Amino acid sequence: MEVTRTLARYIVQSKPGDIPVPVRHEAARALLNWSGCAIGASRHETIENMLAAVLPFAGPAQAGILGRSERVDILHAALVNGVSSHVFDFDDTHARAIHPSAPVYPALLALAEWKGISGADLVHAFVVGVEAECRVGLSVFPEHYNVGWHITGTAGVFGAAAAAGKLLGLNEQQMAWALGIAATQSSGLREMFGSMCKSLHPGRAAQNGLMAALLASSNFTSSEQAIEAKRGFGHVMSTRFDPSVITAEWGQRYELSSNMYKPFACGLVVQGTIDGCIQLRNEYKLAPEMIERVDLRVSPIVLELTAKENPQTGLEGKFSVFHAAAVALHFGMAGESQFSDTCVLDPSVVALRRKVKIEADTSIGRVQSHVFIRLKDGRTLERRVEHALGTLERPMSDADLETKFRALVDGILTRQQCNEVIRLCWGVEEIPDAGAIARAAAAYSI
Amino acid sequence: MEVTRTLARYIVQSKPGDIPVPVRHEAARALLNWSGCAIGASRHETIENMLAAVLPFAGPAQAGILGRSERVDILHAALVNGVSSHVFDFDDTHARAIHPSAPVYPALLALAEWKGISGADLVHAFVVGVEAECRVGLSVFPEHYNVGWHITGTAGVFGAAAAAGKLLGLNEQQMAWALGIAATQSSGLREMFGSMCKSLHPGRAAQNGLMAALLASSNFTSSEQAIEAKRGFGHVMSTRFDPSVITAEWGQRYELSSNMYKPFACGLVVQGTIDGCIQLRNEYKLAPEMIERVDLRVSPIVLELTAKENPQTGLEGKFSVFHAAAVALHFGMAGESQFSDTCVLDPSVVALRRKVKIEADTSIGRVQSHVFIRLKDGRTLERRVEHALGTLERPMSDADLETKFRALVDGILTRQQCNEVIRLCWGVEEIPDAGAIARAAAAYSI
Repeated sequence: MEVTRTLARYIVQSKPGDIPVPVRHEAARALLNWSGCAIGASRHETIENMLAAVLPFAGPAQAGILGRSERVDILHAALVNGVSSHVFDFDDTHARAIHPSAPVYPALLALAEWKGISGADLVHAFVVGVEAECRVGLSVFPEHYNVGWHITGTAGVFGAAAAAGKLLGLNEQQMAWALGIAATQSSGLREMFGSMCKSLHPGRAAQNGLMAALLASSNFTSSEQAIEAKRGFGHVMSTRFDPSVITAEWGQRYELSSNMYKPFACGLVVQGTIDGCIQLRNEYKLAPEMIERVDLRVSPIVLELTAKENPQTGLEGKFSVFHAAAVALHFGMAGESQFSDTCVLDPSVVALRRKVKIEADTSIGRVQSHVFIRLKDGRTLERRVEHALGTLERPMSDADLETKFRALVDGILTRQQCNEVIRLCWGVEEIPDAGAIARAAAAYSI
Repeated sequence: MEVTRTLARYIVQSKPGDIPVPVRHEAARALLNWSGCAIGASRHETIENMLAAVLPFAGPAQAGILGRSERVDILHAALVNGVSSHVFDFDDTHARAIHPSAPVYPALLALAEWKGISGADLVHAFVVGVEAECRVGLSVFPEHYNVGWHITGTAGVFGAAAAAGKLLGLNEQQMAWALGIAATQSSGLREMFGSMCKSLHPGRAAQNGLMAALLASSNFTSSEQAIEAKRGFGHVMSTRFDPSVITAEWGQRYELSSNMYKPFACGLVVQGTIDGCIQLRNEYKLAPEMIERVDLRVSPIVLELTAKENPQTGLEGKFSVFHAAAVALHFGMAGESQFSDTCVLDPSVVALRRKVKIEADTSIGRVQSHVFIRLKDGRTLERRVEHALGTLERPMSDADLETKFRALVDGILTRQQCNEVIRLCWGVEEIPDAGAIARAAAAYSI
């Protein structure tokens, strides 16, 4: 079965008109959410440290870094915007593990700025790229992830290569090479979770995928069976590999339809707990001093990913379901400021965090949660969250996404710029030059 | 066992005076051989295609591309010089699988040009980098390679990070981060053998390792147990992992002492066959028309890696023990011109190639060969090659390496330049600015 070649052909033959309107609208929602995340984290230490390291080596001013004033070559723009969009762990999530936008949009937006690509072509390339990365990811999921690979990096590079290759007009042969060059750069270890390297993964995926497409466009060759060969991606990087899902029902179903947006600034598996805690807090007007003990029944994956009992930094706080429950109950919010170093070390948060106990329950889904709160007055409250806000069953509305965007860019973009980026994202398919989005999202001191 | 941290400490604490003189001389031999390979392949299609793809995005003119006139930022210089030095598959080989120089020297030479590093510091950083990459590689070899990873890429990135980090003066904490950032970029599939991507691997390793060191020097964080953690390099990327070899006998034994240089321009496992064929050809003054049949008894790995019976390109010819035996018997040589597209399609070579049969014999080592030739006049000749030229037991002499260098750079460097690079390499520890080597190896049309 010639999976790599077939996937290449499907990507090359895809036409904008093939994509259903709701899928194209999802691409616009993803664009707004992704750019908000990138702008919001653009002054984070992760980005400052990265820029200090790489700016001396950057090439011509071809593309902007969202939320900042620097302009660099498209490969570095793809890297930095890919990193920044994942720093808050607030970017979109496919229903089965990968973060679709962070590896793909940075590559496309950089190309758009450099080459003057229409918004309709940008959307089309994005949809195709998301198909490629999600399908390749699903062919090895969950075993590949369980082995220890950060699938957003390892599969994301295919998405960036496919999408960038589409915009560059690769032919079928070149697209097969681009997918192969992507495959042989596929990397990113889950061991990095909790360090700045977690965000490096989608950034490198964006940059390496873009590079793969550029190399292929210059006829730099690779294997043409890179995904399915005995020593290719699927067999080397996973204990199970089902190539059929990569090409099955192409054009019939769209993985972008399974895209989710997080209302809370941390990992997917904690969203249900936060949602349940905020619901109970608001309904019963809870204050921290009223609470004696909090018991969470959650999926075993929650313990595996987010069992840091005593986080010391904001980043570590995102991997602590204890902290997440505490801030949800304390503030009724779980935005970026609730995952700051300051908040993680706040004595009242620490005190509340210590009251949170967790128990794994295999009957509970990974985004679900069952919250029990015992109050000092003897009452016991409980809330079972079947569908957390932001899941496919209870999606954030377009208005919710706008609100989230405004909060993320507050203090970085002017109100006028903020409105302009929102306008450009909703109308992305009408704009002749999608690079306008990046230019509208550049920021100087305000 | 804190392997990553311990390795970081060893690297940081290493001093130039610790390194024995023969090991430092081996670094000079490796430098001459590596730069010859890079210069020799500098106009190859692989490099032309890569430069066409990446030059529009390159940064300031900080470092040169060996054998060419272009000057680019150090990250791109590391990439391109890493690729070119492996294109001919003629670079050095550690006795157990990794090509040590191709990921490390490109990063170091670029840094040397940019920062003005002394030759003694360059040599020291190289030795330390080779220790890091070989020891990390040996901790998972051969299982990691058997799974399908191209260890020169996957382990090489550690060498580049360690060596570049040493030159950048990283402290222990930063060095642990650099090794972690390297680990999470580790990549390269053996499926790419026979395509341009095989050479991409050491190039990316050089560039990514250099980037890892630069990021770490700006306090970009990673896991500090990246090599040994459950979801770190060793366990994720191999079915067996022995961390103890990474730190055992540090400073007592040097992996660089196990470095080998190939006299023939193809994979290690074919060298014994070529050597035996050339010996018989010269001793018996064989001409192609005298030969009826050639039987090779070789290690099973030779069949696994180089069993292309009917190669169509020079690159494929390097993975054909049939072609290798044919050119050795035909021309008494197996340099780059014997692995050109023209030579692979030469009817007299094809005819001779068809007379070559191979048989796997588990009693024969991977660099050994047993050659049997039946002549049309009825005679049968045989030669068992226990130690091929270029192995540790029968190393190429310094003079052999000079001859190889001269042949590689012929037509690219002037004779004067050629002599100058040779002089600089042999005296590398005395030169105040090692960047002089790169500048002497730059070439314009001659």
